[in-house]
Amino acid sequence: MATDFEPCGVITLTTDFGHKGPFVATMKGVMLSHLAEARIIDITHETDVHFPAEAGFWLTRSFAYFPAGTTHVAVVDPGVGTQRDIIAVVYEGHVFLAPDNGLLATIAERDSATVYRLDLSDPAKLGLGTISATFHGRDVFAPIAAALAGGKLRPEALGPAVDTVVPSWVEEPRVQRERISGLVVTVDHFGNLISNITEEQLSTLADPVVKAGGHDFPVLRTYGNVSPGDYLALINSYGVLEIARSEQSAAEGLGLGRGAPIVVVKGKG
Amino acid sequence: MATDFEPCGVITLTTDFGHKGPFVATMKGVMLSHLAEARIIDITHETDVHFPAEAGFWLTRSFAYFPAGTTHVAVVDPGVGTQRDIIAVVYEGHVFLAPDNGLLATIAERDSATVYRLDLSDPAKLGLGTISATFHGRDVFAPIAAALAGGKLRPEALGPAVDTVVPSWVEEPRVQRERISGLVVTVDHFGNLISNITEEQLSTLADPVVKAGGHDFPVLRTYGNVSPGDYLALINSYGVLEIARSEQSAAEGLGLGRGAPIVVVKGKG
Amino acid sequence: MATDFEPCGVITLTTDFGHKGPFVATMKGVMLSHLAEARIIDITHETDVHFPAEAGFWLTRSFAYFPAGTTHVAVVDPGVGTQRDIIAVVYEGHVFLAPDNGLLATIAERDSATVYRLDLSDPAKLGLGTISATFHGRDVFAPIAAALAGGKLRPEALGPAVDTVVPSWVEEPRVQRERISGLVVTVDHFGNLISNITEEQLSTLADPVVKAGGHDFPVLRTYGNVSPGDYLALINSYGVLEIARSEQSAAEGLGLGRGAPIVVVKGKG
Repeated sequence: MATDFEPCGVITLTTDFGHKGPFVATMKGVMLSHLAEARIIDITHETDVHFPAEAGFWLTRSFAYFPAGTTHVAVVDPGVGTQRDIIAVVYEGHVFLAPDNGLLATIAERDSATVYRLDLSDPAKLGLGTISATFHGRDVFAPIAAALAGGKLRPEALGPAVDTVVPSWVEEPRVQRERISGLVVTVDHFGNLISNITEEQLSTLADPVVKAGGHDFPVLRTYGNVSPGDYLALINSYGVLEIARSEQSAAEGLGLGRGAPIVVVKGKG
Repeated sequence: MATDFEPCGVITLTTDFGHKGPFVATMKGVMLSHLAEARIIDITHETDVHFPAEAGFWLTRSFAYFPAGTTHVAVVDPGVGTQRDIIAVVYEGHVFLAPDNGLLATIAERDSATVYRLDLSDPAKLGLGTISATFHGRDVFAPIAAALAGGKLRPEALGPAVDTVVPSWVEEPRVQRERISGLVVTVDHFGNLISNITEEQLSTLADPVVKAGGHDFPVLRTYGNVSPGDYLALINSYGVLEIARSEQSAAEGLGLGRGAPIVVVKGKG
Repeated sequence: MATDFEPCGVITLTTDFGHKGPFVATMKGVMLSHLAEARIIDITHETDVHFPAEAGFWLTRSFAYFPAGTTHVAVVDPGVGTQRDIIAVVYEGHVFLAPDNGLLATIAERDSATVYRLDLSDPAKLGLGTISATFHGRDVFAPIAAALAGGKLRPEALGPAVDTVVPSWVEEPRVQRERISGLVVTVDHFGNLISNITEEQLSTLADPVVKAGGHDFPVLRTYGNVSPGDYLALINSYGVLEIARSEQSAAEGLGLGRGAPIVVVKGKG
């Protein structure tokens, strides 16, 4: 139920806007204009551009580290100004606001999530002014987020509850007997290849061996368990499988990046 | 008049310092040391280095989205430590602080703007300590901004009002009958080519056609109005003409960047 | 003595995490969950990866610009999950928290610094939950920093005082008669080559000449003292020697970077 959202005044921002130009800052200016005491935290503005799945992946994996009552805004929005919808998802005491383009699918599809579709037929009713054709981050997302974070709008006041959302651009891993097939969702600053294969999925395989780019990798505990320059696989701190190279970049060393297939098979024991 | 500035405690920062090193953070540390409750928002630190016009362009186009009473600090300052002046501009309830190197010209030249030149002959009178030769951002701009944002200094106490400022490094577009000539001021993270031609200027031409790099572009409403990979021109959400490529980089595709000429002519209707 | 730390609620963050992914933000979420009123300032997240000395260098040079009572957290941690220790250093009214890998050596070795080694034998005693093998920034540093910044934990409660720490990866300059030998610690966004040679060391040489990459550079006051494109050396605003190129990048122009030797000799007067 949406009623489990009690706003705490914290707003997070996830976009593909980068750090050139005033785009993120303009959203923050609008938020502060509506809610002077908002505490705004940048999650990242460097997701791959026009790729909602990476923003959704990180939001799904990191939201629980923020205080209950946080309002999470994610704007990766290649369809801005066209007929795409905007949705708000209430889940585990947090609220998420994003275009309905698959970004929030992994959260919205959970059993206890409630999804609302923004009704923009009368923008003034939601406290909105003029809405530009190219920057809903500023004209819709920022003021709605401030209203949610300040308790002036309840999620259920945004529009009708809906049952289905646009699915994620990245499929869930395929889990078969003795074989899991996933892919690289994102590469971090260190060149670690981060997959969508979860710890729970991996735990179904005894002595797992990870295969990617024609190589096999053992599953170890932490980067320091191998010598600098050596490769390893590990369950990272967000609960998903990653391929890393100690003190170096696995992405560069292996020539792999987003979308690269990763397969885990049962080892010989 | 300067009296229309009532500080709200918000300070924005625009620099060409990038994100390596402690330069921006040091300014924030000084601000918090002077005004513990300051709320500091980064506009951007990735303007082209040593190019004040880009910082001024974005500040002019984005300041109004911040709360009235915001103090805007912009430090793109190739002349630091030499004889250049520092100015404060009060305009529409906001105050702007920057080197007098053309950065603030587009705001300072407006009729209702009031401009003050910092009088640094007795730094202690403005609450300043030792001033280094290379980092006025830390030693002058940050403490003055905190004093303005906290109401401890009024803009008119900074120094004498002045009538002229150093002009912008970028000229305004040339508007002729059936032809407007401007240029690319900046390229954003998506590779959109953002010009200095305004919506008002464009509105004087019927069926405008935009010419750049040997190509013609139609003026449409939003990115999604063309297929991915196709080019278009549009009036962006900051009220200026931009050339974009749907879901791709127009800058890369056209091989154009800052300073590239953009011409708009009347179409054949 | 540790008793000179009176927390002011400000926390600074210095890491090599970059801006891709939710890593820094997750630390901030944990901090806000523990201390809603924390004011968190990013120093930089773009130090060279796996190179603690750069983070320590900037922290040493910039901390004093933050309010007394600031908690500084630095996570450049190639040894995460292995047997390396975590230390807290109390110095001049500030507290510093980092892996014991040399990052804090330049501060910890000062006479009036007090160093504590985190006792993680009973994490719950320090208010910690489950500690992952790969992200102590989130699971140890963030909650401890929030507890220190909020006054819920005193530095001396973290563990035993210790006398020695792991030394810095970068040696101090060698000062001989009429010759100082140092190196480039970091290159900033402008391409300035920043050395570990201090103003005090330089002051021992009359008419110093700076030698690097086969060239000699005069020591001047500020960038504007030479023509654009010309090189110079100067004592920068953090009190160390740097080699710069007016309005251009000295690093690119000279082909020098981190680790490059810099020698200063007595001039001919």
